[in-house]
This record gives sequence, C-alpha cells and structure tokens, in this order.
Amino acid sequence: MLSEFDLIKQYFVRPHHPTRAALGIGDDCALLAPTPGMQLAISSDMLVEGRHFFAGADPRKLGHKCLAVNLSDLAAMGARPLGFTLALALPAAERGWLAGFAEGLFALADAFNIELIGGDTTKGPLNICITVFGEVAPGQALRRDAARAGDDIWISGTLGDARLALAGYREELTLTPAALEAAAVRMHTPVPRVELGSLLAGQRLAHAAIDISDGLVGDLGHILARSGVGATLQVDALPPGAVLATRETALRRAFTAAGGDDYELCFTAPVSARAAILAAADSVATPVSRVGTIDAQAGLRLVDAAGQELGLKLSSFDHFSA
Amino acid sequence: MLSEFDLIKQYFVRPHHPTRAALGIGDDCALLAPTPGMQLAISSDMLVEGRHFFAGADPRKLGHKCLAVNLSDLAAMGARPLGFTLALALPAAERGWLAGFAEGLFALADAFNIELIGGDTTKGPLNICITVFGEVAPGQALRRDAARAGDDIWISGTLGDARLALAGYREELTLTPAALEAAAVRMHTPVPRVELGSLLAGQRLAHAAIDISDGLVGDLGHILARSGVGATLQVDALPPGAVLATRETALRRAFTAAGGDDYELCFTAPVSARAAILAAADSVATPVSRVGTIDAQAGLRLVDAAGQELGLKLSSFDHFSA
Repeated sequence: MLSEFDLIKQYFVRPHHPTRAALGIGDDCALLAPTPGMQLAISSDMLVEGRHFFAGADPRKLGHKCLAVNLSDLAAMGARPLGFTLALALPAAERGWLAGFAEGLFALADAFNIELIGGDTTKGPLNICITVFGEVAPGQALRRDAARAGDDIWISGTLGDARLALAGYREELTLTPAALEAAAVRMHTPVPRVELGSLLAGQRLAHAAIDISDGLVGDLGHILARSGVGATLQVDALPPGAVLATRETALRRAFTAAGGDDYELCFTAPVSARAAILAAADSVATPVSRVGTIDAQAGLRLVDAAGQELGLKLSSFDHFSA
Repeated sequence: MLSEFDLIKQYFVRPHHPTRAALGIGDDCALLAPTPGMQLAISSDMLVEGRHFFAGADPRKLGHKCLAVNLSDLAAMGARPLGFTLALALPAAERGWLAGFAEGLFALADAFNIELIGGDTTKGPLNICITVFGEVAPGQALRRDAARAGDDIWISGTLGDARLALAGYREELTLTPAALEAAAVRMHTPVPRVELGSLLAGQRLAHAAIDISDGLVGDLGHILARSGVGATLQVDALPPGAVLATRETALRRAFTAAGGDDYELCFTAPVSARAAILAAADSVATPVSRVGTIDAQAGLRLVDAAGQELGLKLSSFDHFSA
C-alpha cells in the first residue's frame, strides 16, 4: 500500500537545485527567488480524464502533455520558465502509472531546466492541475491586447495534425495506421515554443501573441477582441502538419484554421521586423510562416490564395458547450 | 447556455487592481510584480468532492474554504498573500452554484486584499485547485526544518471542533443540532492565521511552523522529522474548540491531538520569545497556547497534566489509505 507521503517521495521528489528554487517540495510552501525587478508570469491549466485526454491514456505522454500545455502559455507570454507545481487527483496510487507519468513530466521539465517545486496529491477522479512560473522583463511580455493595424500575423510550426489524429480516433474519417500514428505525435507530445517566445519578447520583435490551443480562428479572435482590431487570414498560407498536408483542401483548411490542440504560437509583428523574426526563428530551429495581416477594420476575414473571401463555418472549442 | 468565457466574465473577472498584479485574468499568463529582493512563497491545494467536502456542499462556504486552506499554507510560512489562481472542473455551469462559490471566495480574498489573477475552467467531476502566492523576506520564512531542542511548542486558536462536526455528520457520535451547527463553523469556514504568521516571521519570533490540516500529531511529526528532533506534548494543555470543550476527556484528547481540518498554526519558538509572542498574538487578536517542548531526543511523547505518558493511539490522515 503506497501512502500519500511515500508516493510523493518515490515519484516526485528529486534532487533539489537551489539555483532554481530557494526551497522545493516538503514544506507548507515552496520558495522562489525571482530575479529582482523581473515580472513573474503565472499560468494554470487543469486536464481532466475523458475531456482533455482519453481514459487509459499512456501516462508517460500525459506527463509530457500536461506540462507542455502550461509551458506553451509561458511561451506565448515570452517568459522564461522557472518552475511548476503539480496537483494530482488519482483514483488509486498505481506504481506503473505514477512511474510513467513522472518519467514524461520530468523529461520535459529537464529539457527546459525547470523544477517541480510543490503541489498536492489526493484521491479522486483523475485530474491534473499544473501551475507554471516564468519570468519576463517589465514591458516585454507578449500580451493579447497589443496587436496593431498593419502587423503581420505569424504562426510557428504547423497546424492541424493534432485535430486530424482526434478525427482518426473518433472515426470521423479514415486514416491509415501509419498516418494516425504520425499525426498522433502532435496530439500527445506537443512541443512548447518557449525559446521562440522568449526571443520574440526579449528582442521586442512581436507586438501580441497567444498560443493556439482551441483552434487558430478562436485564439486569434482573442487577440483581435482585446486589441480592438480585425484581421485578414490567408487560409491557404496556413502551414498544415505533415499528415494533414496529404489530405484534401477542405479538410486542410478546416483543421489548420480551427483544429485545436496545436500549441503553436500565433503572434503579430510589424512589417519592419520580418528579417529579424526569420533570423530569430532560425536560431532556435523553429519554422515560422506569415499568414495574414492585422486590419483596423473589425472582424476576421478568411481569404484564399487569390484573396477571395471563403465562406468557412468554423467555431472554436468551448469547454461548456462541447 | 453559459459558455466558458461568459462563465469566467460573469463570475470571476472583477475590477483589476494594478497595485497587486501587473496583469490579471484574460491573457496567456498573469503577471505579478513581486517586491524586488523578496522571496515568493507558493502553495497548491486541490479539493475533490466527496473527499474534502460533501457532495451538495454550500458553494459559498466551499468558496471560502478552498481559498482559506491555501492561505493557511502561506500563514504557516509567514508570507504575506499577494494573489491566487483558480482551476475549476465543474460537471455543469450552474449559475446559482457559481454565484455562491464566487461570493464566498471573493469575500475572503477581499478580507486579505488579494486578487484572483488567472486560472482555468473546464467540464469534469467537481474539483477545485487553487495556487496561492505570497512574499516573504529572504531568511524569514517559517520552515519545517528549523525547530530546535528547548523550543516551546505553540498552537494558535483552538483545535478539534472541525473533527467533532465531522463525527456528528458521520453519526460517529451524537451532537445536538445547536452543537453540530456551532462546531461546523470551524469545519466549513476556517480562518487562516495570516496576520499571526506574518508577525512571527517578520519579527523573527518563531523557528519552525506548520499549519494543522491533517491533525496536530501528524503535522507536528513533519516538523520533528525535518528538524531531526523530538517533542513532549501536554495533551491536556491543547486548547479544545468551544463545543469540544463540553465533551469527555478521551474525546477531547483524541480530537485536539489528531482531529484534522483545524487550519491553526503549530509553531516552535525559543523560551526567550514568550512575552513577545503573546504581545504579537494579542495585537492581531489571535489566542495562542503553549502546549509542549521540543526535545533533542527523537520521538513524540504525549503526556497528561501530571507529566504521565498517555497511551493514546492516534494516526494522521492519509489521502491514499483513508
């Protein structure tokens, strides 16, 4: 029988790095010592079984993904990750699950040199709540309300393969096993664009940014609403994932524009920054694509390569209506 | 039909106080601007329906309690609260529940002048995960590993009424309706000892501290283990809650020593600090009691008023064995 304290000790307490946190797991609170004068960026995401991941999901991939989606929020703010807390409700303390989950979680944490500094474990329906901490210089954070008319709209990486994998699992369409497996990598193990976000903020290249979790159209819509602007999006310029790229135009358009679960960055930047953005993205081996323009006129216009408006019906994911 | 964004806007977005957070709800991350040079204290607690509270619990009390238990962790560290995030999984977006929950949550937040700076909402089995942020000067945090042989052991407030109420609800014993109602106040609306913790840290009066959530014996045990010391606890000196005080000795001893859900502070301090501790506690109208001594010898000895060792069988709460 694994007790709560044994569980924490065996799977989640690791050698403490005093350079990252002043005090880690094991007290009433963790202590972080932020760089004096820096702002602290904070984000919480909660993942629920059957909602954000399938029951019986591979715990190693789940450990990766639940931290990745939180780091993606730091990336979209341009913040450098410092650490995270984990609150975990588990139906039972299963050793195999815990070992796999911890392996996936810490592999990603190590990749970004961040530490698990505290949290909570309890019995209950499987629920994973992570809160991440990062830091960013005052005035450099990439906010949603800072897009300006005339800005280019950029996307990192590719879009739509995570949504394509979901469609495959749901049997909304037919994928070969090889295609499903390839697309599913994007669904299960998203890579947060932390280095790119950090460069865009640190070099003051971008105005506004958001990470694409609920689908580009909806997430870009948040930038437009908060910034009081509109946009024209060249749908056929949206970079499809490698598997989606082999599919028909209508599907490609729908899943790149409104797929969801992409965890790429959508950011806006002045035309004068184009060369610097390409150089910055190249320096961290992250592809970026220009996909549209911010307009003074409200509303989002979806156009094809010829500039013709497309009558696409797309909607963003809503956790209480879906 | 209440959408996720309407839900957040209607119930959880309030006027933003830029003095507390540099950027509140509505972006990828919140931004906090900690006082330069201060350490950031962070704690996460997750509350699950049926585990930490009854199904159908009063949402207003629940809103209070889930923030209170987190603030209690800041209090036990001696940190001044700055803000918190809320991640909430809800089976459905019910307006009455949300309004009550938000009312209880924000009444307590306002009492401590702190702001909800971000979070997440999703559909799922009812689960409330709060992460709180506070600040404390370097070297002043009240840690579990700092108790020293010869220290007095102190308790704030009273113990056991929350456990007594639980026993009443579970019908483990009989309480009059008036007694149950009075005891239940301690179970539903604990008051975090934030001001006392802050004074103990700021005036460097205490060595070690912990908040009593799983029962004094177990929680004090964490201090002993981390500090490499033992203790003698005068069980009959433990201050019982007003309702528990009317009950028989055996019950009083069991529920003060190992009741749980008290959210009082247990702290250790040098004998020389006695007068200053009483003055500090008096200045924030928080009663405190001296209840034992930290020993160099390992182990926890429970003694009666005559100094005779008691053969009490007590155990702390474990979320995976209970």
